[in-house]
Amino acid sequence: MAQGKEATKKRTIQNKPASSIIRNAEGRRRVIITKVSPQVERGHFPAKTVVGEETVISADIFSDGHDVVTAAVLVKHEKERQWKEVSMKHLGNDRWQAKWYPEKLGLYQFKVQGWIDHFSTWQRGLEKKIMANQDVHVDLLIGAEMIKERAQEAAASVQDQLYEWGEMLQKSADNGMDMTLALSKKLANAVAQSTKSLVTVYPQVFSIIAERKKALFSTWYELFPRSTSSEPGRHGTFKDVERLLPRIARMGFDTLYFPPIHPIGEVKRKGKNNALVANSDDPGSPWAIGSKDGGHKSIHPQLGTLKDFRRLVNKAKAHGIDIALDIAFQCAPDHPYVKEHPEWFIWRPDGTVQYAENPPKKYEDILPLNFECEDWKNLWAELKSIIDYWIDQGIEIFRVDNPHTKAFPFWEWVIGEIKKSHPETIFLAEAFTRPRLMERLAKGGFTQSYTYFTWRNTKQELEAYMHELTRTNLKHYFCPNFWVNTPDILPPILTHGGENAHIQRLILAATMSSNYGVYGPVYEFVINKPHEAKEEYADNEKYEIKHWDWDKYSRVKEIIARINKIRRENRALQATANIVFVPTSNDQIICYGKADVERENIIITVVNLDPYHTQGAHVNLPLEKLGIEERPYRLQDMLSGSKYTWHEEWNYVELNPYMMPAHVFKIVR
Amino acid sequence: MAQGKEATKKRTIQNKPASSIIRNAEGRRRVIITKVSPQVERGHFPAKTVVGEETVISADIFSDGHDVVTAAVLVKHEKERQWKEVSMKHLGNDRWQAKWYPEKLGLYQFKVQGWIDHFSTWQRGLEKKIMANQDVHVDLLIGAEMIKERAQEAAASVQDQLYEWGEMLQKSADNGMDMTLALSKKLANAVAQSTKSLVTVYPQVFSIIAERKKALFSTWYELFPRSTSSEPGRHGTFKDVERLLPRIARMGFDTLYFPPIHPIGEVKRKGKNNALVANSDDPGSPWAIGSKDGGHKSIHPQLGTLKDFRRLVNKAKAHGIDIALDIAFQCAPDHPYVKEHPEWFIWRPDGTVQYAENPPKKYEDILPLNFECEDWKNLWAELKSIIDYWIDQGIEIFRVDNPHTKAFPFWEWVIGEIKKSHPETIFLAEAFTRPRLMERLAKGGFTQSYTYFTWRNTKQELEAYMHELTRTNLKHYFCPNFWVNTPDILPPILTHGGENAHIQRLILAATMSSNYGVYGPVYEFVINKPHEAKEEYADNEKYEIKHWDWDKYSRVKEIIARINKIRRENRALQATANIVFVPTSNDQIICYGKADVERENIIITVVNLDPYHTQGAHVNLPLEKLGIEERPYRLQDMLSGSKYTWHEEWNYVELNPYMMPAHVFKIVR
Repeated sequence: MAQGKEATKKRTIQNKPASSIIRNAEGRRRVIITKVSPQVERGHFPAKTVVGEETVISADIFSDGHDVVTAAVLVKHEKERQWKEVSMKHLGNDRWQAKWYPEKLGLYQFKVQGWIDHFSTWQRGLEKKIMANQDVHVDLLIGAEMIKERAQEAAASVQDQLYEWGEMLQKSADNGMDMTLALSKKLANAVAQSTKSLVTVYPQVFSIIAERKKALFSTWYELFPRSTSSEPGRHGTFKDVERLLPRIARMGFDTLYFPPIHPIGEVKRKGKNNALVANSDDPGSPWAIGSKDGGHKSIHPQLGTLKDFRRLVNKAKAHGIDIALDIAFQCAPDHPYVKEHPEWFIWRPDGTVQYAENPPKKYEDILPLNFECEDWKNLWAELKSIIDYWIDQGIEIFRVDNPHTKAFPFWEWVIGEIKKSHPETIFLAEAFTRPRLMERLAKGGFTQSYTYFTWRNTKQELEAYMHELTRTNLKHYFCPNFWVNTPDILPPILTHGGENAHIQRLILAATMSSNYGVYGPVYEFVINKPHEAKEEYADNEKYEIKHWDWDKYSRVKEIIARINKIRRENRALQATANIVFVPTSNDQIICYGKADVERENIIITVVNLDPYHTQGAHVNLPLEKLGIEERPYRLQDMLSGSKYTWHEEWNYVELNPYMMPAHVFKIVR
Repeated sequence: MAQGKEATKKRTIQNKPASSIIRNAEGRRRVIITKVSPQVERGHFPAKTVVGEETVISADIFSDGHDVVTAAVLVKHEKERQWKEVSMKHLGNDRWQAKWYPEKLGLYQFKVQGWIDHFSTWQRGLEKKIMANQDVHVDLLIGAEMIKERAQEAAASVQDQLYEWGEMLQKSADNGMDMTLALSKKLANAVAQSTKSLVTVYPQVFSIIAERKKALFSTWYELFPRSTSSEPGRHGTFKDVERLLPRIARMGFDTLYFPPIHPIGEVKRKGKNNALVANSDDPGSPWAIGSKDGGHKSIHPQLGTLKDFRRLVNKAKAHGIDIALDIAFQCAPDHPYVKEHPEWFIWRPDGTVQYAENPPKKYEDILPLNFECEDWKNLWAELKSIIDYWIDQGIEIFRVDNPHTKAFPFWEWVIGEIKKSHPETIFLAEAFTRPRLMERLAKGGFTQSYTYFTWRNTKQELEAYMHELTRTNLKHYFCPNFWVNTPDILPPILTHGGENAHIQRLILAATMSSNYGVYGPVYEFVINKPHEAKEEYADNEKYEIKHWDWDKYSRVKEIIARINKIRRENRALQATANIVFVPTSNDQIICYGKADVERENIIITVVNLDPYHTQGAHVNLPLEKLGIEERPYRLQDMLSGSKYTWHEEWNYVELNPYMMPAHVFKIVR
């Protein structure tokens, strides 16, 4: 991943002892560059952006004294040879910024450079002296000298011109002619063309990875293929899923994620509700991968054949849907690896294999791989080959199961390697764990990450969390994917808040985060009976095959379809870091705005967080921040269709959760 | 400065492309280390500490999965070969910390390492399983195996013991004997002695410079030696200064700083009040250095001889006072350098030398040195030789004039070089300029810095500024020195606030910052007539010789003596970063506490910021934060001597600026 040789070479200069400044003859470079942004882990990992999106590069750049400083960024794709120069603007307080738009997928490198522009310094001084009616005779001679010097190094095209101008300045010095030329921009530009001198180049090359648009804007639906059959009692197949594609497309999802589709272990298989002993007819957990029927590169026989699968992948594409597979690097006790590669597992003195455990908890149907084993290089290679295999079957998106229980260096390596040949690949990290671990996975290459959104319910919690995601350094590398539920998580609010809460949480996820996901059909059917001990669904689909009436009417389903249509049609909702929160007079009402870069598409979302009662509040739109100049201004609620005319920054809204718990306003021009 | 070869070598690993993880066989190292603190400019410069002071090193350290992580810091002085290991404590949320106390002056290097402690992981698991009444037969066998493995690599001293314990565990496995040994700390420790495996070492070595105590705690007095004569009209001499040493010592100052003591240029010399043309009897500005009598290594003839100077330096030392000299790297037009080294200056087409200017402002009595000149290496060497020369005369402290108008790389080099042979040297940066430049000078090696304190008057301004200095990364490298006034700056509050303001500002400076300074005797004599155009003294001493009645009584002088005595006697006031602000009910009353590391010395300062009116307020002491357990607790105001007994966190204070505008309480035990 990181920036390879050049960066390394440069980096070593950065760390020189001061005494070597002399040896390296750098003493005359007076411009200082620091606090370069974006950088992730001090440049060890690339920052993230999306092809075509505005990407900001900034730094603190300054020099001693009063001379005019100039700065630029040099950018190139790792596969290009030529650096492209993008000039930087001074934002004030010695902070400089350049805006740049990556054109293709993959890793870009950039470096920041600054230098003193002696000619502009001279020009600025001359102007001030003229204003102060000081004698500028000598100053003009100095300028003339400079121009001629520059002319010598200048491109042939401008050379003669420069000499001529030099002469003219000399003359005006002698006979005090007019200063128009001396102070002119054309002269400044012509000189600027010629060589810069004593340029400071920041001693590290940083990198930014440009990903596909979908990395930033995706809408996920999760289902268990085995629960898709039309007849009760029959094991669902890929063909059954094909039947559901139109439904999923109508709901507006562009990513369909399956739990593991591989053969399920029979040894130590779990029964319904995670029972230690399974009945003969229990299908087991799809995450207990591997049996006599094969491992991670095989398909569960009852789901269909590889041919069926490829057909499904193509049909889905035709509906604008990517199939996402689950990468769960662990093995059932009867996974072929256990016999073929015993060296990849931990063996206990009693001759048994070590199963997964977090004492006193045991997961006997799952064996962890030993990332500390002597044969780790072959283990890594084999695991990579699994991802390569499914890429060859047309898969571009992977949801990775519990990546934080596998060695971090492995992920950094495998994702880096895969992206070299397949930069379009998206990896979603399913890590619900401590902040530093989640951050590291994102730094290490995961495109998107599950988040704590699932447990953030109050206005204060939601605003604080969005601030962390969009206003701290996380915004450069941690791309959130807000899931309203998962087979592992039924948040209490969905249990006690019923349908209203399902709608509220859906609208929050879909409008706060440009990536979000739903595990269905339990979500749209508002099935929310909790497990007695855990924040999980009772009779969890992880351990049994369900039969659903997929065509049944569902209000939540209709709203999902509407909100996803709104997301597709409004660029403002296709980014996350652009969120701006709006003060409201009632903590039960949360309000935020989003605008696209051009400020042409502006969306204001207001949500009642209380599933039980109608709530009203005054909301205070920061019209300037949002780029709304008109007074009065008109809004259309894209959920209800109704139009409003607002006059002030403060406006009153009231939302009944039994009707519709939210407004999603678009500013109408 | 920075960390030289080793760091450089390590650094390059840090930046490897992920694919090289395999080549470097680092894949099995599962512990991740990041956010190492302290680091300045990513480790390019050392952080600062003081010999003997508690120095905290911290980092985020974690691993995948649930194993027990252990971490340590390795520290060594750059001149030592042996690394010393200091173990780190987990503070929570994956943050780890080590406390370390540097023993000698100079540059220390440190690196952070972490590893997984499989034995502790096993022990913790065993305990949980026993709690849960699970069968631990196999676990004991696993433990026994581990212990024997470790025994092989263990030191001979513990080897037999380990084998024996391994046997015992084996037995207890078979006959389910008691678990005391298995769970014992002694066993854990014995095993811990033996080799760590797969240790992650953070790929960069960082550095911390340990300076002398005085870098953190110093009390400065500035005077013009030429204004010290006892007879009006006579030019003051070093002998006259000797006469004043007892007075300065009584006032409690430990550092006596002189403006430049060198020959003053005669060409273009400035007259009184910065007049462009001087009268024949005008002495000129001491900062216009150099004449036929010599340059930066010469002494102004009327001040005395080098012998007189050395004598003064020694007498001062006898009074516990260090003489600090002014380093002003610029030349008068008749400075010897101009003839000897014309290549160090900028020459104009009319054959004149370029003088200092910031158009339209001109400083014709001063020529800047050209740090971009071809001969820069000799220029640097010569400037360094000036500092070396005065060090040879016994000077250890330098106040550097306008360092931000000389090239930054020069300072980084020259301070680094000087400190190699003279680590006790202190450099104070007189840079009143933009934040990024002031920060850079401090990073580049300046021991102390002038600050914006001089213009921070309100409670909100003072608290915000102290927060920036003591709660952001500045605390690792920017050591403030609070000056209440200087020959260049007479803050308006001293003009309109009179004596009361002089006392208030003095107490603020002396109690907020462990380094502070006073320019006298104008300060203690409350001479505060402002220049009509600038925030400067009228009839500025920079341009004329003053005659003072040094023995005259002054209330401010008495209070300076008292406050400096309080500083000497209370360790809490000998640091700056330990300040904790206390809420008060009145914005005119500011209150803050300081405690030493052991919490044995606790000082609470309350100051009335209003020079005109009595102000009262409730102050809310955070007794816990300050480590005050007793109820009631007793305080002694060390300014007035009176004692108080307080019962609660909230207490009322009232301060009359015409009596005494402050309390400096000590908690009495």
